[in-house]
Parts: sequence; C-alpha cells; structure tokens
Amino acid sequence: MRASQFFLATQKEAPTEAELISHKLMLRAGLIKRLGSGLYSWMPLGLRVLRKVEAVVREEMNKAGALELLMPAVQPKELWEETGRWAVFGPQMLKIRDRHERDFCFGPTHEEVITDIARREIRSYKQLPLNFYQIQTKFRDEIRPRFGVMRAREFMMKDAYSFHTSFESLEQTYDVMYQAYSKVFTRLGLKFRAVKADTGAIGGDGSHEFHVLADSGEDALAYCEQSDYAANVELAEALPPTAPRAAPAEALREVETPRQTACEDVAALLGIPVQRTVKAIALMAPDQAGTLQFHLLLLRGDHSLNEIKVAKLAGLADFRFASEDEIRAHLNCPPGFIGPVAVSEEVKVIADATVAAMSDFVCGANKPKFHLAGVNFGRDLPEPVMVADIRNVIEGDTSPDGKGTLSLCRGVEVGHIFQLRTKYAKAMNATYLDENGQTQVMEMGCYGIGVSRIVGAAIEQGNDARGIVFPAAMAPFEVAIAAIGFDRSDIVREAALKLHDELQTAGIDVLLDDRGERPGVMFADLELIGIPHRVVIGDRGLQNGEVEYQARTDAAAQAVALTDIVGLLQKALCRSA
Amino acid sequence: MRASQFFLATQKEAPTEAELISHKLMLRAGLIKRLGSGLYSWMPLGLRVLRKVEAVVREEMNKAGALELLMPAVQPKELWEETGRWAVFGPQMLKIRDRHERDFCFGPTHEEVITDIARREIRSYKQLPLNFYQIQTKFRDEIRPRFGVMRAREFMMKDAYSFHTSFESLEQTYDVMYQAYSKVFTRLGLKFRAVKADTGAIGGDGSHEFHVLADSGEDALAYCEQSDYAANVELAEALPPTAPRAAPAEALREVETPRQTACEDVAALLGIPVQRTVKAIALMAPDQAGTLQFHLLLLRGDHSLNEIKVAKLAGLADFRFASEDEIRAHLNCPPGFIGPVAVSEEVKVIADATVAAMSDFVCGANKPKFHLAGVNFGRDLPEPVMVADIRNVIEGDTSPDGKGTLSLCRGVEVGHIFQLRTKYAKAMNATYLDENGQTQVMEMGCYGIGVSRIVGAAIEQGNDARGIVFPAAMAPFEVAIAAIGFDRSDIVREAALKLHDELQTAGIDVLLDDRGERPGVMFADLELIGIPHRVVIGDRGLQNGEVEYQARTDAAAQAVALTDIVGLLQKALCRSA
Repeated sequence: MRASQFFLATQKEAPTEAELISHKLMLRAGLIKRLGSGLYSWMPLGLRVLRKVEAVVREEMNKAGALELLMPAVQPKELWEETGRWAVFGPQMLKIRDRHERDFCFGPTHEEVITDIARREIRSYKQLPLNFYQIQTKFRDEIRPRFGVMRAREFMMKDAYSFHTSFESLEQTYDVMYQAYSKVFTRLGLKFRAVKADTGAIGGDGSHEFHVLADSGEDALAYCEQSDYAANVELAEALPPTAPRAAPAEALREVETPRQTACEDVAALLGIPVQRTVKAIALMAPDQAGTLQFHLLLLRGDHSLNEIKVAKLAGLADFRFASEDEIRAHLNCPPGFIGPVAVSEEVKVIADATVAAMSDFVCGANKPKFHLAGVNFGRDLPEPVMVADIRNVIEGDTSPDGKGTLSLCRGVEVGHIFQLRTKYAKAMNATYLDENGQTQVMEMGCYGIGVSRIVGAAIEQGNDARGIVFPAAMAPFEVAIAAIGFDRSDIVREAALKLHDELQTAGIDVLLDDRGERPGVMFADLELIGIPHRVVIGDRGLQNGEVEYQARTDAAAQAVALTDIVGLLQKALCRSA
Repeated sequence: MRASQFFLATQKEAPTEAELISHKLMLRAGLIKRLGSGLYSWMPLGLRVLRKVEAVVREEMNKAGALELLMPAVQPKELWEETGRWAVFGPQMLKIRDRHERDFCFGPTHEEVITDIARREIRSYKQLPLNFYQIQTKFRDEIRPRFGVMRAREFMMKDAYSFHTSFESLEQTYDVMYQAYSKVFTRLGLKFRAVKADTGAIGGDGSHEFHVLADSGEDALAYCEQSDYAANVELAEALPPTAPRAAPAEALREVETPRQTACEDVAALLGIPVQRTVKAIALMAPDQAGTLQFHLLLLRGDHSLNEIKVAKLAGLADFRFASEDEIRAHLNCPPGFIGPVAVSEEVKVIADATVAAMSDFVCGANKPKFHLAGVNFGRDLPEPVMVADIRNVIEGDTSPDGKGTLSLCRGVEVGHIFQLRTKYAKAMNATYLDENGQTQVMEMGCYGIGVSRIVGAAIEQGNDARGIVFPAAMAPFEVAIAAIGFDRSDIVREAALKLHDELQTAGIDVLLDDRGERPGVMFADLELIGIPHRVVIGDRGLQNGEVEYQARTDAAAQAVALTDIVGLLQKALCRSA
C-alpha cells in the first residue's frame, strides 16, 4: 500500500477528554474518530488492526471446531422475558420500539437468541455437542462511556455458545476454548494471563477471564509464581490466618485522635503498625421482611473491602453503603471514628477472618476525635455475628492453593469464558432426547472475546513516548518504507517501489511512505502508528547500496545492504523466504 | 469440512408464510432461521455463502482503490437534522432513545456520518479524491418485511462514499465503481444488468442500478438489444410518437358500456384495438398556496402510469390518487367512466405524449355506463394543459437512444450507485481549500451493494425442483462427497477421507457427507443446498477404481476414475492443478 493512496490522519495533540494512553494514542494515530459518546468510527488504519485481530480470533475458533453463524443485532423482548433478563439487565440494555410499537433491544449479548435456535434445531443427543460463534457489533448503553474503544457503547465482540448432553462434555469444550483463547492472545503477541473469575450477571458455575497485562488495567489480578493459581482479585480467596488469636495483653483505653480518621494516620500517631488497626465500614441491607438492617464490617487497617465477596454473604446480596445520617443514627458518631465496641444489638458486626484472629487492636471509639486501643473480642465486645472472607487479597498473602504466596498485577479483561450449566436452557426449555428417548435439559457454555477492546488493550501494553508499539501480528502494516525524496529522486523512487513490490510478493504487509514529506514528519507518523519495522531509503545510502533498518523497539537504526533487506524482514517476521 | 462436524438442518417443508422461492429455499436448506419479523439468523451454512459474497465485494472494492472503514451503526440525531433527513426519512428509520434521553437512529445509511468525517478530516484538495467504504449491518424498519433476506429489516450492506474536487473527478470514480460492480457480479457468476435509475430519497444526479435478472424480480427493466441502452422502467423515457396527430375523421358519439370500465373491455365491446382507447387517472396535488388541485391524467388504454415521472412534473411532487368522493365531486361520475371531455376549468388535464398525438379515440363519458367515441383534441375538448411522458415504456417501444426497440425483463436490485454532487456536502458544510486557497464544497458519490440481498437474488435466479443451484463462487461448498456406507465400509471411509484431504489441499472447498445416511437422503440434502459438484463414493464403484460425478446442473451422473476426479474438479472450478 502506498501512503499517497491511503488515508493517514495523525494529529499532534490528543483531545483533552481522552484519559487512557491507548485512547489518546488511537485518536492521535487516527485509528479511530469519535462520532458521539461511546461511538467511534474505525478509520482505514484502525480497521486494518481490528480486522487482523478478528481474523486470528476466527481462525482459532474454526480450528477449535466452533461453527460461525450470525444472529440479528436486534432482538425481540419476548425472548428476554423468558429468562427474566428484560427486567434484570437494566438500562445498560438499549431498548428499542419499532414502528408497530413492539419492543426490541439492540443485543448486548445473545444467550437468549442462541438458546432459542438450539431448542428449535437440536432434537437428539446425536447432534451434540455443538459450539456456535459469531463476530458482531454489540451495544451496551454504558452510563459513562470512556477510555475510547475500551469501554465504548458500540463494540465488536466474538461470542460463542456451546451445547452439551453432560457436564463432562461442557468441561471438555470449556477446556478447548481455554486453549483456543490462549492461542489467540499468544498469536497476537500479547502478554496475558487467564484467571479464575466471578460469573457476574451472566451466571453459571466455572468461569475464567483472560487479561492483557497493563499497569493501567481496570482489573487487579492475583497470581502465584510458585503454582498455576491465578484469579481476579474480585474472586481470589484470602485464607484465614493459621495462628490462633492471642490472648488479650493490653487494657482497653481511649486514645485521642483529633484529626486522624484513616487507619494509616491513627497508626502513625500511635507509633504502631497499621496491621494493628481495624476499620469499620457501615452497610445497609434489607432483611427477609424487607426492613433495612445496619451492618458494621470490620477489616484490618491495610486491607480493602471486596464488595463481590460481601454480596455473596447471606442477607447481603442487595447491600449498599450507609449514608452519613444512617451512621449517625445507629452509632451516634460521624464516620471516621466509628467502631464495633459498645454498639446496640441492632448493629450486626461482621468481621473479616483476619480481624477475627486479632487481639489488642485499635479501632474507632464511636466518639468524635477518639479511637480505642487494646480492644479484644470476647472481653470488650461480643464475638462477631459472622466471620467471613470479605477483603481483597494483597501482595504476599498465602496462595489459596497453599503452594506459595500471591503477587498482584493489573490487566484489561479481553476474554471471558463461562460454564453456564442449565441456567438458560432450563428457563427456555431447551431440551433434547437422550439415548433412552428421555427428554433432558442441555448443558451450556458461553465464551466471549472483546475484539475491539483487544486493540485498546494492546496499546495499553505496548506504547512509548513516540507512540504505539504494536506486535507485528496486529500492526496496521508490518513494514514501513520511508522514502526520502520520493518526489524528486528517481533512484529513491525506483528503489522504494521495487522494495515495496518485493515485500508484497513475499506476503509482507507493507506501507510505502511516498508522500514526499520531510524525514522527521515521516518518522514521527510511522512511529506514532506503531509499525514494527521501518526501512529508510535515501539517495546517500543507495550510493553505497544500503538502506537503514530499525525495529520500532530498537534504540537506533542500522545500515543494511539493499540486497539483504527482504531476507532480514522475512526473518524478523518469522516468514519463510 | 465433514458434515458430522458441521451443522446441516434441512427441512422437508418451507413455512407457509414464505412467498418467494428464494425465501422458501433458504429456510428449507437451513441457510437462515427466522428470529422475528424481518430478522434472520444466518446459520453456519448460510453464513458461508454470505461471507463469500462479502469477500468478493471487499476484494473488488480494494482493487478499485476504495478504503475500508467501519462507522457506528448507532448515529446521533443531530447529524440527521443538519441534512433535514431526520424528519424526511420517516418511520423506516429506527429511532432510539438512550438512557440519557438523547435521540439516535440505527443507521439505515451513512451519508451524514461519512460527510461529518470528511468535513473534519479533509482540509486540502491534495487529499482528494477519496473513496471510503464499509460492510456493515444496517436496519430499515420496513412496514411489511417479507421475502426473507430480500427485504429484511436487518441486513448486510456495502456502502461506499467518494469525495472530489470536481464533477469530472466524481465521474471518474463513478465509472470505476460501475466497473467494480460489474466485476463483482461477474465473479459471483450471476446474470445481471446495469440500468439507469431514479435517484429517489438519496438524491443527486446520475444513478445506475445493478439488477440480478430473475422473473420474480420486483423491478421491471427496459433494455435495447441493438444498443447498450438499459434503464429501470421507473426512469426509461418513452419517446413521443414521431407521426403528427391525424385530423379528426369520426364524429363524437356516446357509446353504451354497461359493465365495461377497463379499456380492454371497452375495446373488446366496440371491436377496436385497445390502442384506440384512453384512460383517465385522477390525482390530487397541492398548488403553491397549499390548496389541493384536481388533475386528470390521460394514458393510452394499454399503457400504465409511471408515478415517478408524474412526481417530477411541476406542481405534482406531492401528488396522491384522488378518492372516489373527490372524483364524484369534480366530475359528477363514479370511477370507471370518467374522461376529459366537458369538464370544468378547475380540472387540469395532463396528457401523456402518446395520447396527445391520438385522434378519434375512445374515453370515459363522465356518465355512468357510457363512454365517448370519436374524441378529438381541439374539437371536442381543449388541448391538454400539459403534455408529458408519464407512462411506463412497453416492449417494442423505440429505444430512447433511437438505436432500436426496447425489450423488458425483471430484476432484483442488488446495487445502486449515485452521483450525489454537493447535496450533502453543502448541507453539512463539507469544504476543502483548492489550489488557490479558496474554500470549495466537495462533490460526492455514493455506492451501495445489498450483500445479504445478493444471496436471495442468486437463488431467485438459480433454482430448480430439487432446490438451490448456486454459482460455484458463492456456493457454501464447491464440492460434496457423498460417501455411501461411510459408517460401515472401511474402503469407502478411507477413499472418502483421502479425497476430502486432497481436495482441501488443492484449495477446494469440500463437504464430506460422512453422516452414514441413505444415498437418497444425502443426495436430496446436497441438491437442496445447491452444491455445484457432487462425487459419490461407494463400494461397488471403488471395486472398479471409479466414483460417480455429477454437476448440480447435469441430468445424470457419470463414472470417473478415482485417479482422475481431482483433476476433473480442478478443471470444472477453473483451478490450476
């Protein structure tokens, strides 16, 4: 491709509303253009990247035996009512009314549609297992779309759905998908990690997320270097302390903490480790009768609350944080100094397992500007009504498999696989006849990849001060030829066009910068858009039969004989000569 | 691909609501499944066809220098207000309100979005011309979706938009697109015709439609065997008669036509050719002050009204047919016997050019059960206030280029190219700086292909009593191997798998029917789904080293040596060995 026949539209500055580096770079490189909130056009340069990702996903899905189909984006309300998700999915689902006043949605996901197809088309166990997938534009009406293609409202997704006669068969396909996903991200040249995950709104049993590792990732991941344990921090279990609680050694006493509300500040004031402090978090949750109950959750001062774990506790599924008024009403104290000592019986105290094993700790005194020290369960306050794992794991925690300690990293979720089991099939009566002619409900799995999100995630992982650093497998072009003086030097033009044609013939995706721009402009553009290999052709080098080669990640260029450059690039791109 | 690992879901009967043969066959062959009104899932078998069509379209667009991008399906109302089309497009446009109560539409077309991109990205004449395209799911909320994918609400379209500094540049790209479209339909193996067309709601100047020829096509096309003239009948000009009007020869007289209202019946009763009769059609249209005016349009008895031509006449842009009450009010006569003689001055009489040249004709008498004969302009009634071409051409009319006579055929519109000129660019202020630094409005073209519609159109063109007859270029598989006794004969299984692998290695898209079904079941399925080449492998033939080969269009199978079959198929598919 010649740049003069292509459409490059790089910009010096990114719009100020772009927060993430990938969002800024995608706009500056002209990969995407904003149409509206959470709506982006993929420009020719960006679409090349997206299509390469799509092609790798498609190839690996086909190799894994999945069958591609294409379901409508617009789905009738009636199907979603069968599973009860029309109401549950909430305002993230874009609802549509057609000219005949019938209700539809712009599909955020396709469990209902594929299950409808399965119940109509699958009669016998002989047809199973089956794994269908599609690559399609989806829409989720995010309340605050941001981060460019990473959390756009309209996005491209690969979604697959498998159907089985047994859980064993589901587990087999689930494993095949796990391997296929690993191949996709490996082939795309991304550093990634598969982690155990929460199943969230999709439901079902087992679940893994695939994350592209990047410091800016929204998700925190916990993994064990000494074993293959890896999980989203949302899910990662914090093992309870193995040592029993020590006997009380200190007397209970009030300590003045005039401006100290955070545990770190209290610990600093008292000259103790923050691990000796306990913070209290107030929640409201309806009991079975629907009456709101006040809960006080206790965490060690350096730990953070894991809301997903909390929501799984009995009676706390619909919790919310208490307001300042509610806190004052139940504890007669403003936030910052609240604690579990001497509270009324209405207040349900739930302790994280770490806290339950602590003695002689420091906590809020339920009295403005005061904390308590030397606090002990059983002596100064009752044992908690519930002890549970309600915190996020931290670096150095024991791995839940007991085989080492946990490390933390951050990632961008780009894939998610679920064992749905019979959740949808049961609701929609998707059955088949087994070997004995008996009607059985199908087992199901579902498997998503955020195709457009991968592009953003790859840029979060690969960038530097000069712009995007794409892996070759998803770069818009694999090689750029910067022809200095293309518009005025016959020998440069001739050599550049010849090399361009040779590389194309060798199956290499090449962009010839024939715009006649100054070298600085060409280099800046080619680096910004992340092309992994660059060849500079100029009069001076050609006189010695040489060109300059530089990989996007190299510190400097090297002179290469013109006769060697095709071979060098073939080798660099692992292409056979 | 092995059938046991694929998903074939053929049906004996098509649902009764399917009207067109292509719709019936697509459902019976299991290419698509209905989700709702005008909403279809493309099943794996159908998607293979759709993707092949898509690939050919993409390749030819790329070869023609167009740049692929991908715009959002969901578009903000504000852009459509700039061109005034938010109101104009009507209920066919699916309007959406998001969670923030902002208005959007599910894009039925993308002129506004691409023009917005162009005005932001194109600054200088040096960047032009540019031709952008996308292949995308679109939505039109048809009031009565029908004919399966031929008039679905959700469908796949290729839409391209070009931008230019001059009309000459637009004409050049328009011609390149015309050639590219011709290549697409030629490569797909379809009989097609490009015709001059009306520009309709998209607007602009020149326009051509591409039609796949099929007797069931919705559009009537006129073409000249003796020249390259071809046009949609909507647009095809009817030349006025060359002979001058003859002088009156008959006296005006009333003739009784007790039950005869249609011209054919009146002519039969009177024993005259229908070409001697004139029919009157009553229309209402607002004048400049907005007052409805009554118009009487005169057509020769065997001619039909061309509403598109009528709407282009001064003062008739917003015409509608008159109601029976309106006809009675203005002519004091029920429909069936109305005519232009002795009408009040309020009635505007418009004659088709053919009628204007007639003398001694027969028309309604404005008196129930009576017609007039021997009617002549200038003697029995005034000359018409307007003479114009308001009829559809008929077989045998002189070609508008004067180079022969017209023939008629029917087609399914699958492509449409338009010279939009500055309609959108002006409305949205899409300008560039010319060589002299002056601001100029861009010229635009737009070019559509109904990708999913092509599949239906191809089946309308190619089918027989046994099912679909796909051209090889768009068949779901190019070759089917029917292995008789695959489940019980080792030599059949071995030979079938070997041939399957050889064909795959030769780059041929092959389906091995390894289901172990009876030959009749296999043959019926493979014929129904339209696979162009079939090889039957059975024990008996293998004993002689032979298989059976039959093209989908062959009357009978022929024995072929097993060693020759790959070569035969390569030759049949124009593939090099």
